[in-house]
Amino acid sequence: MFQRITLAAIAFTLFSGVATQAAAARDNARDTPSASALLAQSRPDEWRTPDPANLLYLQLPTGRVIIELAPDFTPLHADNIRALVRAHYFDGLAVVRVQDNFVTQWGTPENAKDGYSPAPRDHGSAKTTLPPEFTRPLDAALPWTGLPDGDVYAPEVGFSEGFPAGRDRRSGEEWLLHCYGMLGVARDNDPQTGDGGTLYAVIGQARRLDRNLAVVGRVLVGMPLLSALPRGSGALGFYTPTEPHMPIRSMQVAADVPAAQRTQIQVLRTGSATFAALLDAARNRHDAFYTRAPGKVSVCDLPIPVREGATRN
Amino acid sequence: MFQRITLAAIAFTLFSGVATQAAAARDNARDTPSASALLAQSRPDEWRTPDPANLLYLQLPTGRVIIELAPDFTPLHADNIRALVRAHYFDGLAVVRVQDNFVTQWGTPENAKDGYSPAPRDHGSAKTTLPPEFTRPLDAALPWTGLPDGDVYAPEVGFSEGFPAGRDRRSGEEWLLHCYGMLGVARDNDPQTGDGGTLYAVIGQARRLDRNLAVVGRVLVGMPLLSALPRGSGALGFYTPTEPHMPIRSMQVAADVPAAQRTQIQVLRTGSATFAALLDAARNRHDAFYTRAPGKVSVCDLPIPVREGATRN
Repeated sequence: MFQRITLAAIAFTLFSGVATQAAAARDNARDTPSASALLAQSRPDEWRTPDPANLLYLQLPTGRVIIELAPDFTPLHADNIRALVRAHYFDGLAVVRVQDNFVTQWGTPENAKDGYSPAPRDHGSAKTTLPPEFTRPLDAALPWTGLPDGDVYAPEVGFSEGFPAGRDRRSGEEWLLHCYGMLGVARDNDPQTGDGGTLYAVIGQARRLDRNLAVVGRVLVGMPLLSALPRGSGALGFYTPTEPHMPIRSMQVAADVPAAQRTQIQVLRTGSATFAALLDAARNRHDAFYTRAPGKVSVCDLPIPVREGATRN
Repeated sequence: MFQRITLAAIAFTLFSGVATQAAAARDNARDTPSASALLAQSRPDEWRTPDPANLLYLQLPTGRVIIELAPDFTPLHADNIRALVRAHYFDGLAVVRVQDNFVTQWGTPENAKDGYSPAPRDHGSAKTTLPPEFTRPLDAALPWTGLPDGDVYAPEVGFSEGFPAGRDRRSGEEWLLHCYGMLGVARDNDPQTGDGGTLYAVIGQARRLDRNLAVVGRVLVGMPLLSALPRGSGALGFYTPTEPHMPIRSMQVAADVPAAQRTQIQVLRTGSATFAALLDAARNRHDAFYTRAPGKVSVCDLPIPVREGATRN
């Protein structure tokens, strides 16, 4: 059922031009194990099946993007996004901004910038302002797998059951990081103006945004549908009126989708022995191609593995 | 002449949805200066005009990508790439690989993987093997602007006249980093097999490759022409035979191009006071939008500003 492992999610593959390389690597007894070999040996209970109430489907004409919300970090934003999705707020809207090496953003259009103005939207039960959930109080009950390799921006980094996170014991805060594939809520200057009607996925270097915006989840499947879009030519990568906007067919909460139309998906537990082994193999990588191991691994550089089964529909 | 500053190169722009935000930020006396304000105050002698012998034009149907070689770090590779370019080795080849959040690669096709096999290429005076220039001996005569903010992978990081670099005083080495937009030379398992006939630009997280490949330069202009391409569906992001390959019209050394057809370009000196001010503004950023300054800046996160003039042709 889970035969296909998302390639992008286990990008610790060999970098080369020869087809014989993987075979050569396997022949070398001193080699660190490959990511695919480690995942093949993982135990079933090292994988978790995300709660469908926390999974969002962003349906584009090019395919389905699957997002996991992180309500332990941003509960009010998760609730508001679910309410907007259930009111069909996003259906018929579009991607409005793609800024190279930064973010892809969709939802509430910026009339002044992108030149199109759809009919007024139904917000359903969603609120229009929210307390800023840019950080949350440190909670020892939340899962935490520390990464001892260091970080430029945060005093401490690690993983909290599937999400890269930062911690500051001095201030007593923890927060999700703007790593590749993370989902954030755009806002205006007032920190309370992020209602979830405009979302962005990180497609480049965006750690400078940490603790200034609510990071509400992670794209588990379909990042290339967002990262390979044409960059907007307007300021900050906003699309101009003459540029085509990738339309949003719908956003749905997976729990609201008939079971037969859901995508079967599992995420490797970041507290598992296999995840620890993946981190270690990345640090100490030595094989037919890598002559010098990186020695360390940065918190944003090891994508958390996701595996998909066949969509039943 | 240099009126247009590449937006992507000064990505320290505001992140918001309201057009009034920039104005609001300017009104706040406590705000850190914006990147555009700092650049507007820069002195002419803080900018350098790259040597046209070190500039490559990668001509795609969608536009011109401009690359600066770094012969101080990888002199033999720079010579070999120039020789290949002058033998028209690349003309008529194509982009062969786009791996999401990693690299875009072009040049010598991998017949087994991408299914097309052009006529044998003329290598001109280029060599087919090269000593691996993955690091070079530390040289106090090379420009160096250290970055005190720390790094996960390298003991010391900074900038060497336009290129992000790492240093290890213990081993006596320095090397260029796999930051976004950097150019590398692909190779097979044997470290001497990178001849420059296959090049890659970093479009994502690739620091794990540091010191395992020759980093030979940086894309100064045109990254979106490489970063927004469709991802290859084959292993490692290689294109399969049925996927369209973005063709290379030509690669040229700018010095060989008639002056009237060259792009006028300048790069901010990384030893300049304005570059130091940009780093400082990034660390301490506080304005109408940013309520918490990042405190630090990572070596790959501040793109080195490039400004272009009109192309005379």
